[in-house]
Amino acid sequence: MSPGRATTRPVVVAPPHRPRPRVVIVGSGFGGLNAALGLVGAPVEVTVVDRDNYHGFWPLLYQVATAGLGPDDIAHPVRAIFAGHQNITVRLGLVTSVDVDERHVELDHGELLPYDYLILAVGSSTSDFGIPGVFEHAFPLKSLPEAVRLRNHILTVFERADADRSAIPDGLLTIVLAGGGPTGVEMAGALSELIGTNLALDFRHLDVTSARVVLVEATDHLLGGFSERSQHEALTTLRNKGVEVLLNAPLAKVTEHGVTLADGREITTRTVVWTAGVRANPLADLLPGEKRRNGTVVVLPDLSLPGHPEVFAIGDLAGSVDKRENALPQLAQVAIQGGRHAARAVRSRLAGKATRTFRYHDHGIMATIGRQSAVAELPGGLTLRGSLGWMAWLAVHLVFLVGFRNRLVVLVNWAWNYVTWDRASRVILDDIHRV
Amino acid sequence: MSPGRATTRPVVVAPPHRPRPRVVIVGSGFGGLNAALGLVGAPVEVTVVDRDNYHGFWPLLYQVATAGLGPDDIAHPVRAIFAGHQNITVRLGLVTSVDVDERHVELDHGELLPYDYLILAVGSSTSDFGIPGVFEHAFPLKSLPEAVRLRNHILTVFERADADRSAIPDGLLTIVLAGGGPTGVEMAGALSELIGTNLALDFRHLDVTSARVVLVEATDHLLGGFSERSQHEALTTLRNKGVEVLLNAPLAKVTEHGVTLADGREITTRTVVWTAGVRANPLADLLPGEKRRNGTVVVLPDLSLPGHPEVFAIGDLAGSVDKRENALPQLAQVAIQGGRHAARAVRSRLAGKATRTFRYHDHGIMATIGRQSAVAELPGGLTLRGSLGWMAWLAVHLVFLVGFRNRLVVLVNWAWNYVTWDRASRVILDDIHRV
Repeated sequence: MSPGRATTRPVVVAPPHRPRPRVVIVGSGFGGLNAALGLVGAPVEVTVVDRDNYHGFWPLLYQVATAGLGPDDIAHPVRAIFAGHQNITVRLGLVTSVDVDERHVELDHGELLPYDYLILAVGSSTSDFGIPGVFEHAFPLKSLPEAVRLRNHILTVFERADADRSAIPDGLLTIVLAGGGPTGVEMAGALSELIGTNLALDFRHLDVTSARVVLVEATDHLLGGFSERSQHEALTTLRNKGVEVLLNAPLAKVTEHGVTLADGREITTRTVVWTAGVRANPLADLLPGEKRRNGTVVVLPDLSLPGHPEVFAIGDLAGSVDKRENALPQLAQVAIQGGRHAARAVRSRLAGKATRTFRYHDHGIMATIGRQSAVAELPGGLTLRGSLGWMAWLAVHLVFLVGFRNRLVVLVNWAWNYVTWDRASRVILDDIHRV
Repeated sequence: MSPGRATTRPVVVAPPHRPRPRVVIVGSGFGGLNAALGLVGAPVEVTVVDRDNYHGFWPLLYQVATAGLGPDDIAHPVRAIFAGHQNITVRLGLVTSVDVDERHVELDHGELLPYDYLILAVGSSTSDFGIPGVFEHAFPLKSLPEAVRLRNHILTVFERADADRSAIPDGLLTIVLAGGGPTGVEMAGALSELIGTNLALDFRHLDVTSARVVLVEATDHLLGGFSERSQHEALTTLRNKGVEVLLNAPLAKVTEHGVTLADGREITTRTVVWTAGVRANPLADLLPGEKRRNGTVVVLPDLSLPGHPEVFAIGDLAGSVDKRENALPQLAQVAIQGGRHAARAVRSRLAGKATRTFRYHDHGIMATIGRQSAVAELPGGLTLRGSLGWMAWLAVHLVFLVGFRNRLVVLVNWAWNYVTWDRASRVILDDIHRV
């Protein structure tokens, strides 16, 4: 205002409008969920974006695939989780591009979401490791629809075999599980129980002992990352359950009619479950900067993107490393702790403070091998096996399952399965047979 | 043996091999299930054929469509039901032809099932009543996949509206229910609650009061077959819940963009749920003999097909009539009692006795209109309304739900929904958003 001009009324100077910083979190798995929960009440506007409207409890996905739980039991609506939190908004959509210079992400329906901070927690996706036929002929097991599709397929091959036994010698009742990690081991244990108990009763005119569950693993051990004793226990337990475990058996190819191993052996089957290969979600390719061979994004010690302190990548998407520069395992706990860390880092930035180095606290690893049998390796060398490991596994999985109602229903289903040996969800939920 | 020839060893004459009569039951709904259970232990070999591997509890299908229950909660594997019964076999398949002269049915996978007795219990299917666009643009609600698809769609339109409010004036949040029978009334009540409570919380940036639930009915009353007082109660209760009920409003057509009523009024919407029309399952067309206008098979008083005393048609497939020649309603109880009757008739035939006339015992009719509100009309003029009707409805539906585990899980879900107003199954279970 020039000194020569007079004002007749007092000038009301509004405080400069400073909109609250926008945080976009992509993914509502363990990482994204915990990042968002860590920002509840913070002076930011958070938008959680996911291509699904639910938080899936993936450690129990194999239970859906083997008819132990229904699909809804392990899914909890994301909006329900955040309904009470005023600063958190949810958006359904698939991120199709990330512009780290303009600072916005674009969604498949065309919407642009600008951000001041971006937390990427989109997890991993299936990799075929370059093996021909995996994407065309094998069943992946990374999502709820995939688990339902696999359940439908397994139940349907038994129905087909019951109607026409001549197809059994062609491997109709052979299920090949590719990959001896926790998912492969858990699937193998649950499948052998599903077949040996429920399906044996369901299909009493069918000789279900002719059904085969074959677990093929490229290395000389199951459960990479576990102790040798646990690996041995998993091997022995599965073999006692009738699972054929082939070690040192890398796959060469998957076809419509079966699999061929690298040494030339062939297994005739119509059912190959691919649990072997994961790589970072393809979203990683939309980001600038270095990627590792498995597609994971190389991040700084505080989980931010080099050159972009406002962008964080966590969980399976990030190639986080521990103090000794070893890559962290693809575990729920890594994602959970990464999410909490990213939320703290955003709060630090907002307060003008430096971010800290992400330190992963090992809470142990566990895998179930079937009814009343699991291995749980806790920090400090404590290992629980057999029934004790199984009870620890049950307890931990119930506690981390989001949603009290889900916990209760899962507990009812588990108790029911346990007492009756029944797997009551063996329902073929699809349209194949409809007119 | 001629007298001139001698035998050196005694001739063992085997008793003539008389294979047990074969009973084929098509359909594992209320009718087929009860027909099969009525033949447990009878001197027959029973094969139950269904295109699905589960018995669906259809009275609760609207709960799946409105996210109150998961799909697995109302489905029970048919094989599990009959696992303990040695004379009952289950076959998954769709019947593609019935040869009443050669006495066999053919399944879609080519298998021929010969029979001595045939019980047809395939229920009803959707009819468009000749209204253009119903099959192309409306959501039917007759099967589990259809209920899941409708749930996905309803939840998805709210997600779409949240991302782009400009589509709301084009009817994005308008749901038109065509047909004021029990299913339409139950859907209307449950939808208004889903929207008014859960979705209002889930989508707090969206003005869900702009969402409309419109129930259109061709006649001047809801709940045809109920007493006037119950019809009035349903109308008042729904209108109090904010449902727009249009009576005397027959549909003229359904398009991609909405519906047109016979009087020319148009309602813009992307969601038309068709609960108005049912007709007999198309299997009826494969049978000889007279059909009614709604496709039902005309049967003799003992439910057998004229000229084919070995073939029975029951439930929604059959045009059964009561003593006054009125068509029996399409109710679970009619199918249940018809199934039991058919089993008794087969036993009578086996014993060389005459079959009896089927007499339907009216156990009443009920429909829920939402939380704590239902009408139940029991025989003898006893009518329960409001909370009392609702409790009667809950009890009856739990008792008739097959499978103890299903009952327990459904009870947990209901109790959870009731106490928390939560409908925890609002999960979009499909592949639309996947890469």
